[in-house]
Amino acid sequence: MSEQQHAPQAEKVIPLTEPPKEGEGEKGPSKSALKKAAKEKEKAEKAAARKAAEEAQKKEAEANDISKNDYGELALFGSTVSSIPASTEVPWIELEELPEIFESSSGAEESGGPHVVITTTVKNARIQSASLAFLVLQHGYETIQGVVAKSETLSKQMVKFVGSIPSQSVVRAHVLVKKPKDPVKSCTIENLEVHIKKLFIVSKADSQLPLQVEDAERPLPLEGQEAQTDEEGGRPVVGLSTRLNNRVLDLRASQNLAIFDIMDGVERLFKEFLQARGFRNRHTPKLIGAASEGGANAFEVKYFEEKAFLAQSPQLYKQMLIASGIQRVMEVGPVFRAENSNTARHLTEFTGLDLEMEIKEHYHEAITLLEELMLYIFNGLKERYKRETDLLRKDYHVDEFKLPEAGKVPRLNFAEGIAMLREDGIEIADFEDLSTPHEKRLGALVLKKYGTDFYVLDKFPLAVRPFYTMPSNYNPEDPNSGYSNSYDFFMRGQEIMSGAQRIHQAEFLAKRMREHVTPVDPESPGLKHYVNAFKYGCREHAGGGIGLERIVMLWLGVPNIRLASLFPRDPGRLEP
Amino acid sequence: MSEQQHAPQAEKVIPLTEPPKEGEGEKGPSKSALKKAAKEKEKAEKAAARKAAEEAQKKEAEANDISKNDYGELALFGSTVSSIPASTEVPWIELEELPEIFESSSGAEESGGPHVVITTTVKNARIQSASLAFLVLQHGYETIQGVVAKSETLSKQMVKFVGSIPSQSVVRAHVLVKKPKDPVKSCTIENLEVHIKKLFIVSKADSQLPLQVEDAERPLPLEGQEAQTDEEGGRPVVGLSTRLNNRVLDLRASQNLAIFDIMDGVERLFKEFLQARGFRNRHTPKLIGAASEGGANAFEVKYFEEKAFLAQSPQLYKQMLIASGIQRVMEVGPVFRAENSNTARHLTEFTGLDLEMEIKEHYHEAITLLEELMLYIFNGLKERYKRETDLLRKDYHVDEFKLPEAGKVPRLNFAEGIAMLREDGIEIADFEDLSTPHEKRLGALVLKKYGTDFYVLDKFPLAVRPFYTMPSNYNPEDPNSGYSNSYDFFMRGQEIMSGAQRIHQAEFLAKRMREHVTPVDPESPGLKHYVNAFKYGCREHAGGGIGLERIVMLWLGVPNIRLASLFPRDPGRLEP
Repeated sequence: MSEQQHAPQAEKVIPLTEPPKEGEGEKGPSKSALKKAAKEKEKAEKAAARKAAEEAQKKEAEANDISKNDYGELALFGSTVSSIPASTEVPWIELEELPEIFESSSGAEESGGPHVVITTTVKNARIQSASLAFLVLQHGYETIQGVVAKSETLSKQMVKFVGSIPSQSVVRAHVLVKKPKDPVKSCTIENLEVHIKKLFIVSKADSQLPLQVEDAERPLPLEGQEAQTDEEGGRPVVGLSTRLNNRVLDLRASQNLAIFDIMDGVERLFKEFLQARGFRNRHTPKLIGAASEGGANAFEVKYFEEKAFLAQSPQLYKQMLIASGIQRVMEVGPVFRAENSNTARHLTEFTGLDLEMEIKEHYHEAITLLEELMLYIFNGLKERYKRETDLLRKDYHVDEFKLPEAGKVPRLNFAEGIAMLREDGIEIADFEDLSTPHEKRLGALVLKKYGTDFYVLDKFPLAVRPFYTMPSNYNPEDPNSGYSNSYDFFMRGQEIMSGAQRIHQAEFLAKRMREHVTPVDPESPGLKHYVNAFKYGCREHAGGGIGLERIVMLWLGVPNIRLASLFPRDPGRLEP
Repeated sequence: MSEQQHAPQAEKVIPLTEPPKEGEGEKGPSKSALKKAAKEKEKAEKAAARKAAEEAQKKEAEANDISKNDYGELALFGSTVSSIPASTEVPWIELEELPEIFESSSGAEESGGPHVVITTTVKNARIQSASLAFLVLQHGYETIQGVVAKSETLSKQMVKFVGSIPSQSVVRAHVLVKKPKDPVKSCTIENLEVHIKKLFIVSKADSQLPLQVEDAERPLPLEGQEAQTDEEGGRPVVGLSTRLNNRVLDLRASQNLAIFDIMDGVERLFKEFLQARGFRNRHTPKLIGAASEGGANAFEVKYFEEKAFLAQSPQLYKQMLIASGIQRVMEVGPVFRAENSNTARHLTEFTGLDLEMEIKEHYHEAITLLEELMLYIFNGLKERYKRETDLLRKDYHVDEFKLPEAGKVPRLNFAEGIAMLREDGIEIADFEDLSTPHEKRLGALVLKKYGTDFYVLDKFPLAVRPFYTMPSNYNPEDPNSGYSNSYDFFMRGQEIMSGAQRIHQAEFLAKRMREHVTPVDPESPGLKHYVNAFKYGCREHAGGGIGLERIVMLWLGVPNIRLASLFPRDPGRLEP
């Protein structure tokens, strides 16, 4: 990029020709050097002559170019965005507004269709002949065909320029909106096309991209398939790491836009449902004074002269908010886990959907509300995000997500789950926590028996849950035995939520901390405030934490959680 | 808390008397030891006799206590919440539902009013006489008077017990809802009271609280006023650090509930407005590979064997999302600043309301949208949060927030601002950044001239803005001179938002990074991906980042940003 582009006279269009390079200075004494210099001089002169001839030719071509002011690269600018000569009569619109503009412009047909300025990405450009080129123009999910054709007022130089624009460049164009002879099957807007009259490049893409968006639009290969070619096109199958390393390009695939629109949808539905039920939205701190929940999996932060940690969940703070009298609280925010797990379902940073609520009579009030919440989300996705959902499920050949009827979410006790697994031939102890394969197996059994991909497992063994979990039947002689008032929610056999009734009395909480399978010190600086919070009167409460990325992954059935994180973080990835 | 409370037979009410202590085992040979032992034995026997007499007396009192099964402390429990004998006929409701229940219970008057079970906080308890006690019961913003009176079916022991409950304890009670003789002025529900028939303590508060909620309900003293007493009641004026150290109690003040309800409102209004205008909600990573924006103010994180940093804003990522073709993006999330600033307006962690958008013709499209957004928020607060707003402004004697008319937000160029300050006698150079006192002075001048507490300052000097800021008129000979397409928004003379048009071309961006007043290396690991994002075609874009806590602080006029953060973080505070 030449500095001229940033010159104060920023409104000027940058010429397409390169500025002539300055001659290099001469130097040097010795004979052979002199001889060499003479030779080089001759060479340089020849080159200069050749260049001058080219320049002259170009100048002549330019002089003959009737369209020379109608295309080129835009300068960077001062206070206005564009150096396209301002034309107050021509509306500047977005691509997706074209159908509406066309509809409302009856009579404009005679003048060749409505005349507008659009700014779009060139998905690809193709020269058909010296006098005709086609573009696919894109904005968001929408694409439309662009046509540039030689005419009395449009030069073949311009056709060549437009047809040669590197894919993914952003252009601004004066266009006439018309009906094509036949529907354009390759674009989302099939029954319109735009005829380009002027076109300027706003931002030129490198001609060699590290990843083709077309490749990102195809499903992620299964493990071991990377670097192979697919059956149909013979194109290389691009693996996950290449995609993630070039995430900005990868995210341009419609499939990826869809994934994150669905994610946005889940969050909206979550808040809609809970706001209507009196939940207050709050932000609790992510920087905390001590690793609060056990400690092993918290990231350490240098905090001025001290140490801090990143919150592994808002658990302790949302309970403290309940203790502060808030009744019902929710939070959507980042959650950090320093777990060295390199699996397809773990991230070191993800988005937590958390809630905590006072209960009146029974902790099942929380389970019931959470079930209703999840059904509200699932049904909302079905209604509002069908197109986006189908786009992904089709690619990955994923089955419909089978929902239970309202009020009929299977709610199994942990012991029943163990019994089902045993019946299926699995050897497992009564109080053994479920491994991932066991969870998946149980999910399959539940699907077979109840016909649903969504179910709840209740009353987990006390010993496998965190210290703040309320025991179901506490035995002081054997304090880590028995079950607890805790539950997990599953989608397609994988856990998406963990929750429980919490202990609301300080003394018993401190006792549980000390006697827990993984003991923590209730007097430690990071936990003291938390324990104290329950010395001032606190209501019985329960809640849960949902992994937003997991919901999206399992709703769609995509094979890796990283696909459901914009810029995923795992033990080996901090970039981009 | 005795272990009995956690025994399997959890449904039983815990007796109020302590279980008799087990006798201590005897030991020992030597004479003096024997003598001592004999003495001790005698002592023990006397003590035992005294105890037995007390027990007998207590038992007799208990036996005479007609209400003995109607009050006490609740056990922790198994699967059900309460050990109050289940009564399917009596509805369990929340305090705020009482007026509705009363309205809909015509005819219940004869039987003494509707009979319900409520669970509430005892704001305070007061014994009027041996046969009468009053409570103030609270849930959320609502309070109601509770009455317990001796009768044929209610003992004076129970009156004493109920009237002695420590403030802030949580209780569950069977009550009859009645009309009081006179309105109860001291409660929010004035025209009803509840007559207590049974009452159990769910969670007993310490009798010595580190902070009285009544004290937290009064305004924060001005600087230097701490530990003094106020004019009226002679109560100690409790300072900020005491409040924050005991934040769970502090947050029980209605004023604090109001502050965070308003904060919730700002976030809702922000999202409502932007969602309706096509902004997509996204979550960008907070863990980043390198300190991205300059570096000095980023917290360092130990990331397995590597170093990571906490994002100082979503700036680079939201721009990368624009480069990924998202059109319009917003994010609400934590922002981390390792600034060692101990002022009333700085936090090390706060909530950022961020947005970024493609622009079509001019970056003022972004300013206009942001102005409309802020007016939408202000007007929304006026409409929906009047009660909460008034509660705080009254306490702190704060003026109404003066709003401009729609479409008439003063939008001053930086140079005009400088001119106004000079006219007012301030010595300041043309391209000097504004200090906090200058900002406040300018705010006062704008208020005087335009009659509004909200205005925009546009076209800041390029040299005082970050490297990604688009220059207004770039001079390659003096690259940090002149103005830029950047803007700040102010409330009551303090900055709440910073924004700008950003550079959307990789080469120029890299150049600006190198030549910036605080240069950064565009090839460095943390910035390489960011710069590359603009090599693939990117539209012109602009945006801004708003501090949520600042909006709340300045809307209400409270004197310290810490009051607008649930659990504030500053260089000296990581707890609670």
